[in-house]
Amino acid sequence: MSYRVQVRVMPRGGLLDPQGQAVEHALSALGFPDASAVRVGRAIELEVAAESRREAEARVRQMCDKLLANPVTEDYLLEVGES
Amino acid sequence: MSYRVQVRVMPRGGLLDPQGQAVEHALSALGFPDASAVRVGRAIELEVAAESRREAEARVRQMCDKLLANPVTEDYLLEVGES
Repeated sequence: MSYRVQVRVMPRGGLLDPQGQAVEHALSALGFPDASAVRVGRAIELEVAAESRREAEARVRQMCDKLLANPVTEDYLLEVGES
Repeated sequence: MSYRVQVRVMPRGGLLDPQGQAVEHALSALGFPDASAVRVGRAIELEVAAESRREAEARVRQMCDKLLANPVTEDYLLEVGES
């Protein structure tokens, strides 16, 4: 069976996010001073062949730990759907 | 009132996604041949001051159209939550 997994990889809470700050300044300059606390990360979508939703999630966690996220500076969140 | 908005900006369906292809190859080389159709985009989180959820969503759509997404090559999805 095939599962569609959405991953969000974000800079960890306490850490500085220079890209987010740059976007926040640009938004303010473009007339959006109502935006704050902007953080920028990566969104990754993939299909995973697995026997169950649980196995698909476990596989994608391994992928995040090995390649998709930096465990020192980033956190990730998964959403597993059917494809 | 303040709303927490999550934005996913992804390469548009029909377009080539070289970053997604590179990640797919890397995953395969690391022992994850079960991953396919990998696509890589940006995840953006921000707080928006607005009178209502509807107004917050409309503001963030404007931000996406003006700065956060490239309307020619990317699509975006929003999720508005309370913060």
